[in-house]
Order: sequence, then structure tokens, then C-alpha cells
Amino acid sequence: MLADSHDARKNSVRLAADFTLPRIELLRKSKAWDFDAALTFITTPNAPSGRGFPTAELEALCRLHRGVVVLDEAYVDFAEENALRLALTHPHVLVARTFSKAYSLCFQRVGYCVGPPALIAALDKLRDSYNVNGLGQLGALATLDNLVYYRKNFARIKTTRARLTRQLVELGFEVLPSQTNFLLARPPRFPAEDWLGKLRARRILVRWFANPAVRDYLRITIGTESEVNALVQAAAAILGE
Amino acid sequence: MLADSHDARKNSVRLAADFTLPRIELLRKSKAWDFDAALTFITTPNAPSGRGFPTAELEALCRLHRGVVVLDEAYVDFAEENALRLALTHPHVLVARTFSKAYSLCFQRVGYCVGPPALIAALDKLRDSYNVNGLGQLGALATLDNLVYYRKNFARIKTTRARLTRQLVELGFEVLPSQTNFLLARPPRFPAEDWLGKLRARRILVRWFANPAVRDYLRITIGTESEVNALVQAAAAILGE
Repeated sequence: MLADSHDARKNSVRLAADFTLPRIELLRKSKAWDFDAALTFITTPNAPSGRGFPTAELEALCRLHRGVVVLDEAYVDFAEENALRLALTHPHVLVARTFSKAYSLCFQRVGYCVGPPALIAALDKLRDSYNVNGLGQLGALATLDNLVYYRKNFARIKTTRARLTRQLVELGFEVLPSQTNFLLARPPRFPAEDWLGKLRARRILVRWFANPAVRDYLRITIGTESEVNALVQAAAAILGE
Repeated sequence: MLADSHDARKNSVRLAADFTLPRIELLRKSKAWDFDAALTFITTPNAPSGRGFPTAELEALCRLHRGVVVLDEAYVDFAEENALRLALTHPHVLVARTFSKAYSLCFQRVGYCVGPPALIAALDKLRDSYNVNGLGQLGALATLDNLVYYRKNFARIKTTRARLTRQLVELGFEVLPSQTNFLLARPPRFPAEDWLGKLRARRILVRWFANPAVRDYLRITIGTESEVNALVQAAAAILGE
């Protein structure tokens, strides 16, 4: 949206069919990935696939770029790996993070960038005054005083994620390995869009996207234990209809 | 700052010596006021002078403009007049307001524009997603449920403002007529910058600006009754030294 409002040329790149990063040799051959782009965004772990991209692959990609690369790590607290060291060692790499996901502050809109001083200084020059509200800043600081609580929460979500993945696979879902707080899952028997309606009828809300790349999938947020139980029971009931 | 970050040409216009709007005939002769500017901002009531500009004068100015005119009414709740009808009747006039002043939500950064549908639609096209945080939106809505409280507060501040003005004038201050929740006052006997230090030594904070246009003045926020009493007593004591 910001690119459009500045009349900037933009270019989105398709992931591989299994939602991994395309192989670098393929990217170098294809015109789709522009290694000379002024600005490149890579969301890792990715949404809505839930996949995390290996830091080694990201580093190889970054090395080929001449412009700035932003690694959007919004979901990184649910992942096994992060790419922070790339922002700390490369002059053109930024890691962007947020308090809106793992720290439950989505209502307050607080995020931050990590990167080399020269890039941070350039961003600082352009940022608007009062760009992060005061209550959000206090909320974000408070989360940092309670990392023990949040880390317990991340661990709980990962445990529930593993359990839900297992149970959905048992029911015949094809589940992508997730490094986030949601699963992308291809449901059996009925089209994904029908599942959306059948689950909604049972007062369970999941996401479905009309985009051809993911229209066969549901995106399912990792809820509490009882929410996840309700989903599994509903899915079993739908399959038993 | 935003103009600079877009390399836009900008141009600030001096008010008259008594901080009123310069007379239109003078503006038309001078090169300082650019009636062809793409965007013109007028803060009314003005800061730091505290003066409100008559709507009739603002309308005459707006009529001469071909670009968009934004009337920044951040302090309007403390004023006797507002220019809302100009935004409702002219295709190129916007009124900007905020919950940061009279509604005490400065920490939450919520504001709004009133204007013709075509201008609002253009702003809507450019605004960033998630540009106002959720808690701020709830806070702003809550103030609208409590207008009785806020209006009582505006009235209280205006009463205190009149009283403080009178008492400062009795002490020899020259006080500009204020339509805001602060006074711009030229103190007697000592330079304004010395007053800043003398008041600070008595744990009273007022604002002083090095800018030549206002360096002889103090900007004094209208506080509670007891805060204003403390200021008046301190000023009398300083003059009695």
C-alpha cells in the first residue's frame, strides 16, 4: 500500500509449491526476483504458510542483494531459529519485529527494527514525530519485565501446535510444518471453503483465503487447549457426517 | 519534518507583531504567503500565542487559496469560535482536530479530519493501515460518552484562564488574549528567560522559546486552581525580591 501511494514499482515473488523459498539458482535465472531492488521484504516465519526459512538460506539470499533487505520476523517468537545475526553483520539487512503477535499488544501497534547504525539513522531521519503512542511504549516495556511469563506462553503454544498438528494429521489433514502461532492445513473430503462454512456453523472461526496459491487450505490459529479440543471434535464430527 | 522528508518546498509566514493574522491586502502584496501552495496549514487557535483567528478572516483567506488549506484546531475546545463550517462548505478546506489536548489523550495519538468527501477519500487512500491504535480508538470513543464531564472541564479552564490573566496583569505582565489552555505573557522587570529560571527554582515549570518572535514571553499552561495560585504567589514573591 505504501509502495502504491508513492507510485513505486513493486513485485511480489511466488514461493515454491510447498511454500519454501525458491532455490537460489532458480531465482537467479528467473526475472521474478529482483536482486537490484531498492527494498526487499521477506516475511520469516512466513504468513499464511507458517513456514520458517532457514537462516543459512536467508543469508545466501541477502548476500546477492544490493538494496536493503528487511526480514519481517513478526512471528519469530514461535520459531526455532531467528535471523537477528544477519541484521547485526550485514550493512544492508534489517530485522523487523513487533509486540503485536507473541506479546499480545496488537491493539497498541508497537514494533522495532534491528540493523546497522547507518540504516537505523536513515529511518530515524524519516520517521514521523509521535509515531508510537505512549501507552503502547509502556505496554511494550512491561512485557520485557515479564519475559518469564511470555516464554512460558511461547512454549505452551508450541506444545499445543505439535498436538494439534498430530491430531489434524490423524483426521486426514495435510498440515504444513509451522514456526508460527497458526497452522496452514489442507482439509480432507470437502473443499477448504466448505470447511470454513461448516466450522463457522459450529461457531469455530478459521481463515480461508481465495488466493489460488492457498485456496485449498485453512489457516488455523493455535488457541487455548479447550479451543483446540473444540476444533478437533468439530472436525471429527464434520468428517463423520 | 514530513515536508523535508519528501524534499517539498516549505515556507512559514510571520504573523503580525501582535500575533494576529496579517491583513489580507498585505499578504496579497507580500511574496511570503503563497496562495498557490499545494498545501497550507493554519493553526487556530494558534500556538504558542494562544490567539484564535476570526472565522471570517480565515474564510476570506481560504477563498484566495487554490490548494488545500488545513485549519489545525487542536486547541479549539478552549475557544469561543470554531471554523468547522469552512470545512463543510469549501471543497479545499480541512479542519484537523485531536483528542490530545482538551480530551487528555495525548499519550494515545488520536486525531481526525473533517472535510469534503473527495478530500477525505484522497486521505483515506494514502493512510497507512493500523494508523490509529485500538486502545486510542476506544479511549476517544469513551470521551464522547462523557462530553458533560469534558465540557465542564473546558468551562473550568476558561474561568481559571480569565482569573490568571487578571492576576498576571495586576502584577505587571502583558498577557495576550488566549483561546487555548495556556497564556503567552510578557513578564515585567526581568527578561523572560530569567523568569524561567526563577520560577524553576521555585519548582514551577513554564515554557520559554528562544525564537526571536517570542523570546520576551513565557508560555504558561492553565493548571488546577492550586497550581495557578502557586504561580501567582511565586510571581509576586519574585517581584518583591
